[in-house]
Amino acid sequence: MIKVQFAATPERWETYAEPMRAGFSNAGLDVDLRVDHTPDAVDYVIYAPNGPLKDFSPYTSCKAVLSLWAGVEKVVGNTSLTMPLCRMVDPGLTAGMVEWVAGHVLRYHLDIDRSIATQDQWQPRVPPLAMERPVTVLGLGALGRACAETLAQLGFPVTGWSRSPKVIEGITCQHGDDGLTRALAGAEIVVLLLPDTPATENMLNAETLARLPRGARIINPGRGPLIDDDALLAALDSGQIAHATLDVFRIEPLPAEHRYWAHPNVTVTPHIAAETRVVTSAQVIAENIRRGEAGEPFLHLVDRELGY
Amino acid sequence: MIKVQFAATPERWETYAEPMRAGFSNAGLDVDLRVDHTPDAVDYVIYAPNGPLKDFSPYTSCKAVLSLWAGVEKVVGNTSLTMPLCRMVDPGLTAGMVEWVAGHVLRYHLDIDRSIATQDQWQPRVPPLAMERPVTVLGLGALGRACAETLAQLGFPVTGWSRSPKVIEGITCQHGDDGLTRALAGAEIVVLLLPDTPATENMLNAETLARLPRGARIINPGRGPLIDDDALLAALDSGQIAHATLDVFRIEPLPAEHRYWAHPNVTVTPHIAAETRVVTSAQVIAENIRRGEAGEPFLHLVDRELGY
Repeated sequence: MIKVQFAATPERWETYAEPMRAGFSNAGLDVDLRVDHTPDAVDYVIYAPNGPLKDFSPYTSCKAVLSLWAGVEKVVGNTSLTMPLCRMVDPGLTAGMVEWVAGHVLRYHLDIDRSIATQDQWQPRVPPLAMERPVTVLGLGALGRACAETLAQLGFPVTGWSRSPKVIEGITCQHGDDGLTRALAGAEIVVLLLPDTPATENMLNAETLARLPRGARIINPGRGPLIDDDALLAALDSGQIAHATLDVFRIEPLPAEHRYWAHPNVTVTPHIAAETRVVTSAQVIAENIRRGEAGEPFLHLVDRELGY
Repeated sequence: MIKVQFAATPERWETYAEPMRAGFSNAGLDVDLRVDHTPDAVDYVIYAPNGPLKDFSPYTSCKAVLSLWAGVEKVVGNTSLTMPLCRMVDPGLTAGMVEWVAGHVLRYHLDIDRSIATQDQWQPRVPPLAMERPVTVLGLGALGRACAETLAQLGFPVTGWSRSPKVIEGITCQHGDDGLTRALAGAEIVVLLLPDTPATENMLNAETLARLPRGARIINPGRGPLIDDDALLAALDSGQIAHATLDVFRIEPLPAEHRYWAHPNVTVTPHIAAETRVVTSAQVIAENIRRGEAGEPFLHLVDRELGY
């Protein structure tokens, strides 16, 4: 009997308990899933932030901590976490992210806001074709790559940027500092899908925003700290940036007094782009426990130095 | 020297004259393109509705009438048009239509209107995945098929309906009256891309709208007469239909007093989904003239009985 501790908020336990048990059963695993195992008996911890677990040191025989979330920035620096840590790369989350990004890129491309807002005049404004609308995706991890590929399928010329060099068919890949300058020049729509690390904090700042063509649009479904909020607000006020759609923020929920709420050229969405999907993520957790028990390498193991 | 008459409005002549000449030149054709040829000397007529040409009988040596538009319902019944008539199937038009349809389907799928309209509260509502959102495309011609395939690539389960049986990989194809009932049952989003013929008029009426699941959404980038407007307004008022996005109308521009403008659950767009693109359509016209001169069969020849 494999002892698995579920360490997240009680609401998540309600949502996940049954699908998790189904996932284990389908994977042929004999699992005792609980929220109240004796720590030193636990084989695996399923983890999400904001739950009760802060100190991993009592979990002396734990073979891995399996995050329910893609972003592990809140736990990767926890020095009590000495066992392997795996991120969630949930095919359902990826699909949802691709849909959200494609929807908002097309919304900007087609100027859909105006069709919705101004129901008062017959004034045809035919948008250019996607092939004439360069889009840049910053970050080419599992999510960035999937979004870049779907946008390219829709006809957009897509440039992708990552820290280290990558090659993806149909995508112009850039990397490093010089590559960032090239990726931003000409980008009419920029999608932020970088992990939240010290190296990516304030990636969009006064200097990088100024490198975009005037009137560019920003879509951030990645992480709040990727953007210097004051610099973005200044660029929105000056017209350098025409519009921003932001799903993630430094503080969530976004405080009621934050200028983003009232800004006419900002759309706030409440961190819905990258929702872990219960059924598919339970399958990923079950697969990683199967691998741990079989002595196979874990999927989506976090590199502690890189932070993701 | 091939004599080609351009028979559309003067504004179109301004837009098309140069790209057309470039298209002929690139195709190696020696063409005299004008708006004022002597009719009986003309080899080909390039035609768009609303222009000066109503009577084709003086064009006694005309080898084909080449429509600038995809829809030929305004000219197909003209009894003076006895020469071959070709529709426009413009790859640029198809691309623009696919982008418009994908954008509005994703807008409904992600409930983007609400994100834009209600900038006041942090209330996460995670949409289902595309794989859980059945979409039906009525019409599987060049445009309907391209849209259906792109929606399927985005993950939606897509059902397509056409008059005659079709087989398209990845699409559940239905046809005929029984097939229509099956195509409508369960469709959360319906896209209308049928041609405008006597057989398709009022395809969406009180009876067919009632076959959709309650709360379905309608997207019409096809032709205005496909919808019984009074029946749609009644279904919107009752909540049977949650929302409609309409790009085409029986009378265009849509009259200022039409109920669609003010209805809270209707988005009107000013016939922008299927815009013929100048450069790509000039290439199609040039190719058809090349075929005519070489004695090869024309592309996109209209079947007068079917009306498209």
